[in-house]
Amino acid sequence: MSTSAALDASCIFCKIIRGEIPSFKIYETKYSYSFLDIEPTTKGHILIIPKYHGAKLHNVPDEYLSDILPVTKKLVRALGLEIDSPEGTGYNVLQNNGRIAHQYVDHVHFHLIPKPNVDEGLEEGWPAKKADMAELKKYADELAAKVNN
Amino acid sequence: MSTSAALDASCIFCKIIRGEIPSFKIYETKYSYSFLDIEPTTKGHILIIPKYHGAKLHNVPDEYLSDILPVTKKLVRALGLEIDSPEGTGYNVLQNNGRIAHQYVDHVHFHLIPKPNVDEGLEEGWPAKKADMAELKKYADELAAKVNN
Ligand SMILES: [Zn+2]
Ligand SMILES: [Zn+2]
Repeated sequence: MSTSAALDASCIFCKIIRGEIPSFKIYETKYSYSFLDIEPTTKGHILIIPKYHGAKLHNVPDEYLSDILPVTKKLVRALGLEIDSPEGTGYNVLQNNGRIAHQYVDHVHFHLIPKPNVDEGLEEGWPAKKADMAELKKYADELAAKVNN
Repeated sequence: MSTSAALDASCIFCKIIRGEIPSFKIYETKYSYSFLDIEPTTKGHILIIPKYHGAKLHNVPDEYLSDILPVTKKLVRALGLEIDSPEGTGYNVLQNNGRIAHQYVDHVHFHLIPKPNVDEGLEEGWPAKKADMAELKKYADELAAKVNN
């Protein structure tokens, strides 16, 4: 499982992956490493990181990205969050890119955060506005042209 | 690309996938469907949904989950968010599970949300606390035993 070529010498998360800095490891695959956040927003706050040093999501190769969510699913079950009743504990999966978007370590990391109550876990502010339908249509077509070429 | 067996008759997102309800579609693969949110928190707020009716992440088969993040990466580039300077526009990737965690449509959906400034896009509250190291170690071992069996 050597992935050293994909790692960075000075990055704290790369050091955790290499075992040069201790961590509370939970699970590891060829492509990802999962461990407990040491400043959790609630019990069971987990970080899932690719074994590839990329600052933001778009810097990470697809084979690493494809591994993240199936691993997250395993961790959800290990945490006992797979209760499907409306009363079941919720959870959030979050990945931040850039300082303005609350990213403070420049190695992609996914947060798996249980939401047991309103005071713990991720808090979300959602400044939604109804959009102009004609503008949305135009922008969707523009983006579709870009993503498909 | 028929995935009708995986869809639900009354779900609004399944209806969007089937084309029974219009949407501002951007991209589609065998496993996912991406379109503009009609109540965006900022311009370019996109929803990426698996073509499988699962309420929460842990209800969705791995092959659908594995498709989501490589698709998200394509959409990041289409949005022009792949600027790697510290001044580059940020973005967040978010998936909510359960009402308490701000999920309001019971079909898994990933939000790709540009973060152009503090007033638009996702706002995050982060009630982090330093954890007890001995407790973290114990809990990590407990979770590791569960996820690995
Ligand atoms: Zn790194
Ligand atoms: Zn559905």
